[in-house]
Amino acid sequence: MTTVIWADQEDIPANDRGLAYGDGVFETIRVQANLPTLRQRHVARLLEGAKRLRIPLDSELLQSVIAEAVKHYARPEDWVLKLILTRGSGGRGYRPDATPAPRLIVSAHPMPPMPPSEGVDVCISSHELFVHPRMAGIKSLARLDQVMASQAMPDDCYEALMVNGAGHLLEGTRTNLLIRLGEVWLMPVLSTLAVEGTMQAHVVSVLRSQGEIVLEQDILPAIINQPEFVGLWLMNSVVGIVPVSKVDCLRLPVNARLATIVGQHLFME
Amino acid sequence: MTTVIWADQEDIPANDRGLAYGDGVFETIRVQANLPTLRQRHVARLLEGAKRLRIPLDSELLQSVIAEAVKHYARPEDWVLKLILTRGSGGRGYRPDATPAPRLIVSAHPMPPMPPSEGVDVCISSHELFVHPRMAGIKSLARLDQVMASQAMPDDCYEALMVNGAGHLLEGTRTNLLIRLGEVWLMPVLSTLAVEGTMQAHVVSVLRSQGEIVLEQDILPAIINQPEFVGLWLMNSVVGIVPVSKVDCLRLPVNARLATIVGQHLFME
Repeated sequence: MTTVIWADQEDIPANDRGLAYGDGVFETIRVQANLPTLRQRHVARLLEGAKRLRIPLDSELLQSVIAEAVKHYARPEDWVLKLILTRGSGGRGYRPDATPAPRLIVSAHPMPPMPPSEGVDVCISSHELFVHPRMAGIKSLARLDQVMASQAMPDDCYEALMVNGAGHLLEGTRTNLLIRLGEVWLMPVLSTLAVEGTMQAHVVSVLRSQGEIVLEQDILPAIINQPEFVGLWLMNSVVGIVPVSKVDCLRLPVNARLATIVGQHLFME
Repeated sequence: MTTVIWADQEDIPANDRGLAYGDGVFETIRVQANLPTLRQRHVARLLEGAKRLRIPLDSELLQSVIAEAVKHYARPEDWVLKLILTRGSGGRGYRPDATPAPRLIVSAHPMPPMPPSEGVDVCISSHELFVHPRMAGIKSLARLDQVMASQAMPDDCYEALMVNGAGHLLEGTRTNLLIRLGEVWLMPVLSTLAVEGTMQAHVVSVLRSQGEIVLEQDILPAIINQPEFVGLWLMNSVVGIVPVSKVDCLRLPVNARLATIVGQHLFME
């Protein structure tokens, strides 16, 4: 039985396993004109995360909580709906109860500052990202890699890009990435990512529906030095798409190609 | 400025970063006759974890909170004092504030059931443990590996032992391990462990003070098949030391050697 907690009205017991062990998953959803954007993708990822951790989550309950949250926190400007699903309290140490009593925690947050459309400066993080295959893709509450990488990031960087042990470029701390090389788009291998971005999935789906070629492959940071390199974009479901104008000390070409292709479809799903 | 939270009196705001991102560290300390055992080792590990995550924690505050907690939760039987330090609320997404307002959450828990002194059955977990070098040794709140490994553990197992990508035996989900091979003791390489156990450190220190040889080295699970193999022990600061009588289907020799050597010093530090 899942307990729904409205974070503006109620706090969380200190013995909640989300706090104790990172034992849960979350989503942040941009709400525009009282419509949760990319709703089905967020719902699907939260359900997949719950399934992976074996935390029961009823899909209908989730949908109705989202609908209720949009009314409960309604406001004219865009805002961010955050859902945290924890396994609740209980269990013997790390070992969960066979029948947990999960908590679904619902909160509203203002939009973060939007990145400048002319592009952002980013750095390559020295904090390597080791993604456990069993945790790949889902937004678990255990996000210390992202915390440490963003903590070490210089103030004038918008984002820190992380590589894995093989040196492959994976993702930013809070964004996914897409590269244009010659006539094709490149994305890192999805199964190696810490977070499978809902916006990335949406953008790739729009690109492919328009006949563009998007390839999933291992990408080294040195790709930005190749003559065929056209551009690098970051994206997430809250801020949308932003071009990268500089990686560490290297200025990149910036163009509006991706935003132009995807623009009108950005939050229409 | 650190806020101390007594978990029996107060809950935690849902925007605490410990819950949101696993952004914090914790300790569980066995209290015997109102004395916190292995106190200095627990304090040192909590301070090291806070330093690693760059969460400010005043050592004197910590010591005085422990002293106060022992009075606040005093009871005749042994109990477990749990301290959770989180970075508190705030920050821009994953990126922490430069001057965080940490929370130190203090709670009391009953002792878990003690393992039988004649030994416990354990399994080798299929959940590989990838320890990030920057997180190694400290007890961060991001413990999903331990949750998933203990969740998958058969009911009749006391503990699941985890190996890393190279197949080296590292530790249990909640215990460290020590092996007797011929005339020496073996322990896994400390810098590769998810958690540097306070009891393991204590036991190794007692052994060495008695002239025993303890070697730190890569250990493969197959070591239990070697003719020189004498025994395998698990330990943590709450339950002490317990011999392993079976690993998966293989029965192990059980003897009291380690408990006998270390016994009288078990919680005297």
